[in-house]
Amino acid sequence: MKELELKDGERVDDLQLKGLKIIQNKNGFCFGIDAVLLSNFAEIQKKDTVVDLGTGTGIIPTLIAGKSEGTKIYGIEIQEHVAEMATRSVKMNELENRIEIMNINLKEAVDHFEQGSVDVVVSNPPYVNSGGGITNPESAKAISRHEIHCNLEDVIRVSSRLLKPNGRFYMVHRPSRLVDIIDYCRKYKLEPKVIRFVQPNCQKTPNILLIKCVKFGGNELKFMAPLNVYNLDGTYTDEIYEIYSNENIDVFDRR
Amino acid sequence: MKELELKDGERVDDLQLKGLKIIQNKNGFCFGIDAVLLSNFAEIQKKDTVVDLGTGTGIIPTLIAGKSEGTKIYGIEIQEHVAEMATRSVKMNELENRIEIMNINLKEAVDHFEQGSVDVVVSNPPYVNSGGGITNPESAKAISRHEIHCNLEDVIRVSSRLLKPNGRFYMVHRPSRLVDIIDYCRKYKLEPKVIRFVQPNCQKTPNILLIKCVKFGGNELKFMAPLNVYNLDGTYTDEIYEIYSNENIDVFDRR
Repeated sequence: MKELELKDGERVDDLQLKGLKIIQNKNGFCFGIDAVLLSNFAEIQKKDTVVDLGTGTGIIPTLIAGKSEGTKIYGIEIQEHVAEMATRSVKMNELENRIEIMNINLKEAVDHFEQGSVDVVVSNPPYVNSGGGITNPESAKAISRHEIHCNLEDVIRVSSRLLKPNGRFYMVHRPSRLVDIIDYCRKYKLEPKVIRFVQPNCQKTPNILLIKCVKFGGNELKFMAPLNVYNLDGTYTDEIYEIYSNENIDVFDRR
Repeated sequence: MKELELKDGERVDDLQLKGLKIIQNKNGFCFGIDAVLLSNFAEIQKKDTVVDLGTGTGIIPTLIAGKSEGTKIYGIEIQEHVAEMATRSVKMNELENRIEIMNINLKEAVDHFEQGSVDVVVSNPPYVNSGGGITNPESAKAISRHEIHCNLEDVIRVSSRLLKPNGRFYMVHRPSRLVDIIDYCRKYKLEPKVIRFVQPNCQKTPNILLIKCVKFGGNELKFMAPLNVYNLDGTYTDEIYEIYSNENIDVFDRR
């Protein structure tokens, strides 16, 4: 583990996975369950080239590096200070040969990769289609949450251009955007293949959507059983414990 | 209740709703939970004009007549002997002034109604996109289950043409067809507004999809909590009992 340099407001969180840690800033957007579930949902094969569109702290590349072998993962992040912090996390974890953080707008990613060259694109993009009603559109949290510098269609269009034929696209988003997601995926030839909804518990409305698409894939959609975060008694479900690898899950609600 | 005329293989089932009954033929396609859930899911207002595309036994018009006031419901059925049986059920229930069974291909429905004149379209269409691999494509069961005489796109295109602006479309289908459903609904300006999945129990993959669309509706999709048919101990859930109105639910598994 390299020596730690932290800036004002930053802290280090232990990911409970092969000793990996991540630097986050309490004034910025800290990763939540969405990133963890997406990293778990994405099937990564040995030596895959992976691109994470809108990587933030670099949490998804870090988790994917931890669970895969020989992969090269590119994390695209528009915000300079966030990308810089993610780069320090990569160094701290000694993953410089596996993960590269690129400080660009994800819309420019197509200029930095050969078209159709990527095995897997993952993304936990800004969810909120807010139409300009944001108090401070330059705040780090707003940029991570709202479609200010890129929108859903950008993410899907860019993903399709980057991916090889049969390349896989894994995204986490809000169920309320499902119609737009499917519409854009069909438009850009990313065929939805697997959908999984995540619910607070088995009696609640789903609030997280996990989707897998395949570039130029055939028309065949499968659903997985919903993932319930809590049991009805308020404890975490076995599956959530399994995803978080052990019972130290206070990493959860820090967003 | 009018005098009963039954043909070979026919039986009368009590719907447990205001004394309504339905004639079914054990050699044909008998209604299942899908039709009951769709009838429950569809919000019908006083004096709505309702069209049921592919009405079969007439179960959905009968259930809707039972739960609504002043509505006029048209049940479209391509199979002559099925439409004739449905017409006898309408007479048996003395609902001739509320329900009209029309023996036509649903694709011709646009020739029988003024365009944009209908408040609500409901449909429990054939689910299986079977591409011609059917043993007996003229059997009554095959026509009810497989896309032989109409397909998903026909149902959605016809529904859109029939509906008024802001008219509502309620359909029950298989989750595996969700991508096509959304694709066609957008194409024909039926905006998906509410989706509900139905699962055998809270740990299982959803196997029934209920969807509400609004013609020319704005982009705003909501999910309902999944409907679980069974509790984990194998008993029916309270919500299923409620939908079936009482505890006499042996009408269930006769399909």
